[in-house]
Amino acid sequence: MDFFNVISVDEARKRINETFMRLKLGTEEIGILDALDRIAAENTVSGIDVPGFNRSIVDGYAIKSQNSHGASETLPSFLNLIGETIMGENTNLTILDGEAVYVPTGGIVPEGADAVIMIEHVEQLGDNLIALYKPVAYKENMLFQGDDVGEGEVILEKGKKIRPQDIGVLAAIGMATLKVYKKPRFFILSTGDEIIDLHEPLDKGKIRDINGYALYALIKKLGGDVVRRVIVKDDFEKLKCELSQALDSADIIIISGGSSVGTKDYTYELMNTLTGQGVFIHGLSIKPGKPTLVGEAHGKPVFGLPGHPVSSIIVFKAIVEYFIKNKMEIKEDIIKTKAILDFNIHSSPGQETYQMVSLVEKDGHLHAVPVLGKSGMITLLSNSNGYIVMKAHEEGLYQGEEREVYFI
Amino acid sequence: MDFFNVISVDEARKRINETFMRLKLGTEEIGILDALDRIAAENTVSGIDVPGFNRSIVDGYAIKSQNSHGASETLPSFLNLIGETIMGENTNLTILDGEAVYVPTGGIVPEGADAVIMIEHVEQLGDNLIALYKPVAYKENMLFQGDDVGEGEVILEKGKKIRPQDIGVLAAIGMATLKVYKKPRFFILSTGDEIIDLHEPLDKGKIRDINGYALYALIKKLGGDVVRRVIVKDDFEKLKCELSQALDSADIIIISGGSSVGTKDYTYELMNTLTGQGVFIHGLSIKPGKPTLVGEAHGKPVFGLPGHPVSSIIVFKAIVEYFIKNKMEIKEDIIKTKAILDFNIHSSPGQETYQMVSLVEKDGHLHAVPVLGKSGMITLLSNSNGYIVMKAHEEGLYQGEEREVYFI
Repeated sequence: MDFFNVISVDEARKRINETFMRLKLGTEEIGILDALDRIAAENTVSGIDVPGFNRSIVDGYAIKSQNSHGASETLPSFLNLIGETIMGENTNLTILDGEAVYVPTGGIVPEGADAVIMIEHVEQLGDNLIALYKPVAYKENMLFQGDDVGEGEVILEKGKKIRPQDIGVLAAIGMATLKVYKKPRFFILSTGDEIIDLHEPLDKGKIRDINGYALYALIKKLGGDVVRRVIVKDDFEKLKCELSQALDSADIIIISGGSSVGTKDYTYELMNTLTGQGVFIHGLSIKPGKPTLVGEAHGKPVFGLPGHPVSSIIVFKAIVEYFIKNKMEIKEDIIKTKAILDFNIHSSPGQETYQMVSLVEKDGHLHAVPVLGKSGMITLLSNSNGYIVMKAHEEGLYQGEEREVYFI
Repeated sequence: MDFFNVISVDEARKRINETFMRLKLGTEEIGILDALDRIAAENTVSGIDVPGFNRSIVDGYAIKSQNSHGASETLPSFLNLIGETIMGENTNLTILDGEAVYVPTGGIVPEGADAVIMIEHVEQLGDNLIALYKPVAYKENMLFQGDDVGEGEVILEKGKKIRPQDIGVLAAIGMATLKVYKKPRFFILSTGDEIIDLHEPLDKGKIRDINGYALYALIKKLGGDVVRRVIVKDDFEKLKCELSQALDSADIIIISGGSSVGTKDYTYELMNTLTGQGVFIHGLSIKPGKPTLVGEAHGKPVFGLPGHPVSSIIVFKAIVEYFIKNKMEIKEDIIKTKAILDFNIHSSPGQETYQMVSLVEKDGHLHAVPVLGKSGMITLLSNSNGYIVMKAHEEGLYQGEEREVYFI
């Protein structure tokens, strides 16, 4: 059996994308206050100019800037004050040479004016006369109509993860709702006769469902929903029953621990009895994470992740997260930094190696310190901030090198 | 009036912390599946060892490692196979010199054994005889009881923002719930006669409530809840009424746009009519963000943020976020990276300057490119990934310098 006919991470990503090319995650329309961290499913184009009028950004006097040129403390310029802009109201005032209009912060700068001089640099000498003690430049202290956002401008691109400032821009252009990708629905099956849930007694030989919980949270973090998390004993019929329920209710199925060569591993066998292509990836050249299965059943992806916590999470990030980001056309987040290696990493020829690290600041530089442990240990992950990826062709990394660290 | 008696950001943080020293945000007990991104309100100590038994991390044979020393392809070691461990079940087998027990991945390594040799390096020659073709080291391919987490060990520190891997560790030690800080409740009042909400008509002179929406999302991102977001016209009585409601229902009150010197700004006056210290910070030496007010009413903090979107968000991050993180004793997240400046920043003597940047990778290095615009523009923020902080005493930053960029 070609059980561990391993392929590279890149090759696996490619095959998965090809296999599920036609799978759609769907979109939905939501209110912008619910849009934080969701993924935009289309470009958003502004239908208006922001601001919608020439707008002052200070309390001051709207003028023609050339009328202030040469003004100084000793030789002020004098202008006729012809009125004021009322906050939030339209105005039909127009400024001519030698004229000024009082404008509050955010108020309309009347036609004819091309700058605002701050109130601090002006003295009001009478009802209709002001003295300017400083020059202002063209466009100083104001925004012209459309300076912030122009009508027809794309203000949010498809695939963008929505940040607070994006919600600010959506509000600015008056968008109350927007189209985002639906949260992909996951179903997590944790397999293994030794796996128990939190409420069960911890008899000797048993272990809590670490991966089910960690994966649940990773899925939430990635922007997915978990329709069900369930522990299944190593029993062909029980696994079949749960998998069938999973295929009915979720978009993506995760089988945790169902991929090692143990005698009771039915995952492989089971998947090949279902409608579809069955298992098409039987192992990854990745360390840790080799015993990974990927299959297709009823048109849906089934990921068989290794049972060791570190392997499970690394493969989730390398393969599942990549798949979702690709499906949602997510633009790269900045999720990495550069750090100086505090250690050598030996190469594992032909394997992509993921080394857990913790980031420490020393002498103003960020250093990556290895977190050591076995892939069966969850604390190897909880003690890390990130990981370094060494590609299969690399011959090793040396202490003192600068390297990208991906946050975890 | 000492309306703009500005103080430094550090001084403001100190005064705010002192003023609200006795303010408590409260804690609550929640299920670990709901704990992602919440803040731990106490240290969590493990009551058990993980694993709770010596555990194999491969499919193989538990042995005394010394029995494998010297084994090779040409000169295997022979051991007596005395039984097997059943997955998830206890065993009373004990291994003596020259003996082996079959153990599946995750199974108990019987007493007396100190290593597991992988099934790939062993040949079963009969019911009770195996040949080892490779030596294994002490502890190889297994975890000893407590190797991952020891009983009495702190596995999650107070103030930690909970990540997926932390939830994995909590599951590992059998914690179904944990104590986290309650989400601080915010009340957002957006003031200004020109401010309208999304459903209102955009008459000339009006502008949408950009800040209310952006702050709402920032608060969510920070882990808070917004009990209400409301737009209030510049009217003393209306503002008083909403502020009174805010003080009844929220922990922290944000007044957006209520802090400039405009004629209709009643914030200052109003806050000094309420029970409490009133306004105690009248301006920050920060660019942008100078017109910031901070006050105390009924024991609660009231932050009067500038009306310009960039100023508003910068002050929120510099002051409000800092306050919340301090209250929850949040351990520093890694929310920054280093990048090479692509430009000079001029100093503003005596002011802390926040320069928006976008991060771009060039020739394998991260560069910070300035995003230029006026603080009244929301796109100045939405086009940025982060910002650089230049301290008040710094004389300027030069192109080519490496500098910390805080993600936004």
